[in-house]
Amino acid sequence: MILGVAYYPEHEVPEQWPIDYRKLADAGIKQIRIAEFAWAVLEPRDGVYQWEWLDRAIELAADFGLEVVLCTPTACPPIWLVERHPDVLPVHHSGRTVGFGARQHRSYYSDNYIHYAMRIVRLMAERYGAHPNVVAWQLDNEFGGETKYDFGDCAKKAFHRYLAEQYGSTEALNAAWGTTFWSQRYERFDQIPLPAPISSDVMMWPNPSLELAFARFSSDGMVRFARVQADILRESIGERPITTNAFMFRWGDSLNWAELFRTLDVVGMDIYTDRLHDVAFYSDACRSVLAKPFWMMEYGTGASELDRDMEVARARGCGRFFLFKAKPFPWGQEQGGGQPELLTLTGEPSDNYGVVRQYAERHSEEPELTMTEAARIGLYYHFESSWSYRISVSDRIAYPDYIVDTVYKSLFEAGKAVEVIFEPERITEQQLIVIPLHILYDAALERRLTDFVREGGRLIVTSDLFRKDEHNVFLRQVPELFGRVFGWHANNFIPDATRGRTGLLHEAEYGQGRAWVMARESTAEQWRELLAEACG
Amino acid sequence: MILGVAYYPEHEVPEQWPIDYRKLADAGIKQIRIAEFAWAVLEPRDGVYQWEWLDRAIELAADFGLEVVLCTPTACPPIWLVERHPDVLPVHHSGRTVGFGARQHRSYYSDNYIHYAMRIVRLMAERYGAHPNVVAWQLDNEFGGETKYDFGDCAKKAFHRYLAEQYGSTEALNAAWGTTFWSQRYERFDQIPLPAPISSDVMMWPNPSLELAFARFSSDGMVRFARVQADILRESIGERPITTNAFMFRWGDSLNWAELFRTLDVVGMDIYTDRLHDVAFYSDACRSVLAKPFWMMEYGTGASELDRDMEVARARGCGRFFLFKAKPFPWGQEQGGGQPELLTLTGEPSDNYGVVRQYAERHSEEPELTMTEAARIGLYYHFESSWSYRISVSDRIAYPDYIVDTVYKSLFEAGKAVEVIFEPERITEQQLIVIPLHILYDAALERRLTDFVREGGRLIVTSDLFRKDEHNVFLRQVPELFGRVFGWHANNFIPDATRGRTGLLHEAEYGQGRAWVMARESTAEQWRELLAEACG
Amino acid sequence: MILGVAYYPEHEVPEQWPIDYRKLADAGIKQIRIAEFAWAVLEPRDGVYQWEWLDRAIELAADFGLEVVLCTPTACPPIWLVERHPDVLPVHHSGRTVGFGARQHRSYYSDNYIHYAMRIVRLMAERYGAHPNVVAWQLDNEFGGETKYDFGDCAKKAFHRYLAEQYGSTEALNAAWGTTFWSQRYERFDQIPLPAPISSDVMMWPNPSLELAFARFSSDGMVRFARVQADILRESIGERPITTNAFMFRWGDSLNWAELFRTLDVVGMDIYTDRLHDVAFYSDACRSVLAKPFWMMEYGTGASELDRDMEVARARGCGRFFLFKAKPFPWGQEQGGGQPELLTLTGEPSDNYGVVRQYAERHSEEPELTMTEAARIGLYYHFESSWSYRISVSDRIAYPDYIVDTVYKSLFEAGKAVEVIFEPERITEQQLIVIPLHILYDAALERRLTDFVREGGRLIVTSDLFRKDEHNVFLRQVPELFGRVFGWHANNFIPDATRGRTGLLHEAEYGQGRAWVMARESTAEQWRELLAEACG
Repeated sequence: MILGVAYYPEHEVPEQWPIDYRKLADAGIKQIRIAEFAWAVLEPRDGVYQWEWLDRAIELAADFGLEVVLCTPTACPPIWLVERHPDVLPVHHSGRTVGFGARQHRSYYSDNYIHYAMRIVRLMAERYGAHPNVVAWQLDNEFGGETKYDFGDCAKKAFHRYLAEQYGSTEALNAAWGTTFWSQRYERFDQIPLPAPISSDVMMWPNPSLELAFARFSSDGMVRFARVQADILRESIGERPITTNAFMFRWGDSLNWAELFRTLDVVGMDIYTDRLHDVAFYSDACRSVLAKPFWMMEYGTGASELDRDMEVARARGCGRFFLFKAKPFPWGQEQGGGQPELLTLTGEPSDNYGVVRQYAERHSEEPELTMTEAARIGLYYHFESSWSYRISVSDRIAYPDYIVDTVYKSLFEAGKAVEVIFEPERITEQQLIVIPLHILYDAALERRLTDFVREGGRLIVTSDLFRKDEHNVFLRQVPELFGRVFGWHANNFIPDATRGRTGLLHEAEYGQGRAWVMARESTAEQWRELLAEACG
Repeated sequence: MILGVAYYPEHEVPEQWPIDYRKLADAGIKQIRIAEFAWAVLEPRDGVYQWEWLDRAIELAADFGLEVVLCTPTACPPIWLVERHPDVLPVHHSGRTVGFGARQHRSYYSDNYIHYAMRIVRLMAERYGAHPNVVAWQLDNEFGGETKYDFGDCAKKAFHRYLAEQYGSTEALNAAWGTTFWSQRYERFDQIPLPAPISSDVMMWPNPSLELAFARFSSDGMVRFARVQADILRESIGERPITTNAFMFRWGDSLNWAELFRTLDVVGMDIYTDRLHDVAFYSDACRSVLAKPFWMMEYGTGASELDRDMEVARARGCGRFFLFKAKPFPWGQEQGGGQPELLTLTGEPSDNYGVVRQYAERHSEEPELTMTEAARIGLYYHFESSWSYRISVSDRIAYPDYIVDTVYKSLFEAGKAVEVIFEPERITEQQLIVIPLHILYDAALERRLTDFVREGGRLIVTSDLFRKDEHNVFLRQVPELFGRVFGWHANNFIPDATRGRTGLLHEAEYGQGRAWVMARESTAEQWRELLAEACG
Repeated sequence: MILGVAYYPEHEVPEQWPIDYRKLADAGIKQIRIAEFAWAVLEPRDGVYQWEWLDRAIELAADFGLEVVLCTPTACPPIWLVERHPDVLPVHHSGRTVGFGARQHRSYYSDNYIHYAMRIVRLMAERYGAHPNVVAWQLDNEFGGETKYDFGDCAKKAFHRYLAEQYGSTEALNAAWGTTFWSQRYERFDQIPLPAPISSDVMMWPNPSLELAFARFSSDGMVRFARVQADILRESIGERPITTNAFMFRWGDSLNWAELFRTLDVVGMDIYTDRLHDVAFYSDACRSVLAKPFWMMEYGTGASELDRDMEVARARGCGRFFLFKAKPFPWGQEQGGGQPELLTLTGEPSDNYGVVRQYAERHSEEPELTMTEAARIGLYYHFESSWSYRISVSDRIAYPDYIVDTVYKSLFEAGKAVEVIFEPERITEQQLIVIPLHILYDAALERRLTDFVREGGRLIVTSDLFRKDEHNVFLRQVPELFGRVFGWHANNFIPDATRGRTGLLHEAEYGQGRAWVMARESTAEQWRELLAEACG
């Protein structure tokens, strides 16, 4: 596992660079991740560029044996762009425009933003694409963070186009969403509101089909933006890999990873946690998306057991491990004297500086990880079901917590190796598939699961499996899988027939395999018991 | 007690109707409540009507012995109306316009809304008013729900007219409200703001007299809207009764029931609770408003002890009992797989289907209830005092909870029969009158109470009785009743003289009767003791 | 100590004045504080004045031996002014304009507001400045209360001017604020936003340097407004003292007292508390600002131990003690039957009326306090450090609570006399200086503390001393004082070197003195121990 760190040369006077590079190199750092938010430094005025500082920072890094992962700076449009084209700014669901003065103040649906963002990306690619010390690229920063939903006019127009493509006609949309309810029928796509709060005297909320459509649209918008950037980079960077830094589901899993990383080369993510099973889960998840080693793009330098955490990530497929960050920021929103980094504010080595150096020494001879063997247990993660539960008012569930803190943690503590599965076609060689809370129906998945069990697989689902269709509307027919795989022949959904029970509700054999239905409301203890049986 | 249920023919294909009607009829259901939110289905475009589906749904119901209570659909203006006349939408106290996409997105003060709402009401009345299978009408849905306060321009103009009528001159208003305080004096009515939040750096709130006036105005606005609808219906429906479905005080008792139902024929309400004393209280309250049997317009089909609850309602004067609802909604804001209805999503009978059928069988020979005997204990409910307490910042009290959960519950658990009294003239034959938290002075009530006690009645008040005038301003003279009935001759209000004490503060005999003053802060236990004594 | 009370003649008919004055005089009241919010009564229309009522109220007071402290009414612009010049209204950080209908609905940065406010102040000064019964003046009411931060256009322009004066160039500002972080660099001052909420999907907040600059600007704006008023008064009132009524830090210490009162003659404040150490702390603080007796401008008449509280204030330098207030307000936002005043709503003496009268009788022969002796223990209060902590997101601390409820309370309960120190030059004759949470670096203070310890003083600081510069940016060099006074020669800040420890971290002798460093996270118990040692 190669060690790296985030560094911000633009924050320092150039005389400081060799001092810092020396300290990083001495700690065993091999790569630095730079330029993440540097748009205003690279293009201080419209069309006026300052590349020299970055040229020198990259060159000098090579002198210290530090390779560079270069980041596109598109998460922070400069003030001149925002001033000239106010439609660059997205609008929050509260109705207020996201202000200049933080980050991610950009609408993925603004043509002006796209134009200027892609111009700086292209220029960076042309200038540094073939540089021998630039070994990889990171797109933007934490897609799906500060701005994932945009309630501005550009977004609204894009959403109407999206709906027209998805549904073809408002008649079809009305039928799919059941807009006869409360006379919500639309005559034209451009009448459809964004799902902002309704603002009535008692709690009221938008139509759940509208909300799910908007969640999909918003994820798609970010995926498309990433793809366009990646396409531009690829014209100039040869085979150098492209990644980005996704972040923890618990903080908003609003971005479909499988769709995002399909267009990139390496899965990258940021983890900030003090719970070991989080490190394990996200490492498993990252490795599973593309079935190959992933990169940790940010990991908190101040972790209390950093050495242990690095081992857990490495053992689960982490090829490169970037600490965040070299030094504390003295100013700005993330200023901190409290958060210890690799170096302190005064440039002294922190406690974990020694931990990192020892790790690097211990593993200095190892090559970058290239492959791991597939696990026999698959845990299914379904973004759209997660969104459906997050949107729900009467039936809200913290989907990520359930998957990670209840189900995965049980497996982790039992010492089981786990793949995280995001798409039906990845259900292949596993012995056991666990699919909690997969409330949205998926015909391909239904077929795959049926085959899987018939051919000898073990399957655990929760009682809410396939209760809703893709429009977030409850089904009025029990899907075939229930009769076929579970032998559930009642013309009723399992939760309606087992009201109030928890734990294992139903169990059946089918073909060569076996299947269990757990109550959605089951406790961690009940999960542990069933998982022990099903794994055993 | 006649059993009914809410049904939505517009949600189904017509082929489904006979299937559903059969199942409802088999459960003993005699009436269905339909068309509540069907405006967009009845008038899909401005002036274009689709009546045929409703014609057939009503006709077919007759074939299954199901009578129809027809609802006006005015709570859900269609998109075409909102688009053409944006002033149809009310404005929330946050300053945001209530968006299209839920329900009650209508301003009672918009001439455009009134025009279109009354047009569809008139057409429905003309078409179905004389229909032999349409036996009653429900107005709109849950007045005082999602929108009861409107901060838009139409409402503002209407409020200024209201204040001009109430006060005659700004001089009179300034004097009544004490606007010399903090230099809040007005020169013209159109300068008076609506009581939206003040938005200052520390908590600040509008003038309490302004807030109470706005609460009265808002209740009046809904009552007037109901009356206009009822008048239009009456031109075409003959003697068929008109009701509406009010809801629980705990969710906002912003609508004066006595004024609302005075213009209708039957009291109707919606109850959702799992507390038996709620069912009893609201049944007593509903029966008391017009002193005759009431209709339960919605009662949650999934109640855990539905049979018991139905008995409690029937014993207290419920003539018709409508379950909500026939089936779960698969889509829309109220979608639910979790909420069991009479039928499940797949059309199977739920657990309570059997309960309903057995109830219907057991009571199949009974006529609809026509009268009950008056109770000897009266519990006074005063909307305006409730509003005064809700508005108060330093002295806020959950008035409905106090009345229902402290005072009424004590009486209920002691097995006492209770009338709920909303107006002074209903104090007649009772032996005991309990008036908690009646903070607003009412000269007619003062006279009535004085007579009542002198003639032998027993009276319990709380220490805050009559502390404020009708403008929500504290009195500076102790009302005469205190000296006369209570023998309280101090030139001071009782709370000022008994600071910090709870329980019974004062007791006196007057004429043939007796009167008690309870501290407002008394506990439920102290209430139980006093009520036992006063009833005894 | 002279006793006074707030009275509102404009709230009463003139016939009531002698009745009330008599009761006040009988209680031993010597001064009344009047006209605080009377703008609309004095100037009911633009340029039309009604002085007669105030003339008579002042004259009549003299007949009862009641001297008058006259207040300027500028906290409540009348409706006609707001209507004619909407820019009088400030804008809340939520983006909503502060509405008419409460108080402090005024922008300190509106030329229109300033014009009209100074006009009424000048006219009052000319009319009453030489009146023999007007003995002192109070400016406005509770600066820094309802509106201290203003996000409107006038404020924005003023803030840009302020920044230009402070920084000279945007280059200097960019460098000082570290705006390279997240590409926040500005090209012109007028691009800089006010620090309103950023409104992003995850919690995000403005730049901390921007926020601190805005906090300073906002305090300055209020100080400037007070100074302009005072200057106008001084043209007409001779030697009569001017004060204002500041309020408790716990409710927002957004106004720099030292700067405010430097331009006035007497420190005045309002205290509402039921904690004795609050009364003591604020009395010490008020006396210390100008090193002379202060006036209590408002003290809650209903205090449960009023006599004790008055003694505590007097012993700490209170020269005049004004109760708030003569009678409850029947109407308006502060209406209350619950709050007992000197008289009740019906005009009867309250319980504390007797307490006040006895106090007055007991002390009737004493002159107004003129001086107290300085205490030997100094507790430093630094507004800007408090703002820095309030602004902080990752490191927020309730600075006022820490100073008052942890540190001061320990000293108070140990019976120690304390000065509160607001400026370095006030560190003089003390034996012990305690400076908790002084996170912002101050070169003058550093020099003063160094001299103080070298010359034999005892010094207690917390571990966060001088961690940030004046721009709210963390220092990257340990200040010299640490090496010199504490003998702390590590190139690291103390918190970074002592992570997680609480209590006493470091102790040293320097010159004739001694110095202690406490962990910022120390408990009240740990503070008590160290203070006992350091005082001993």
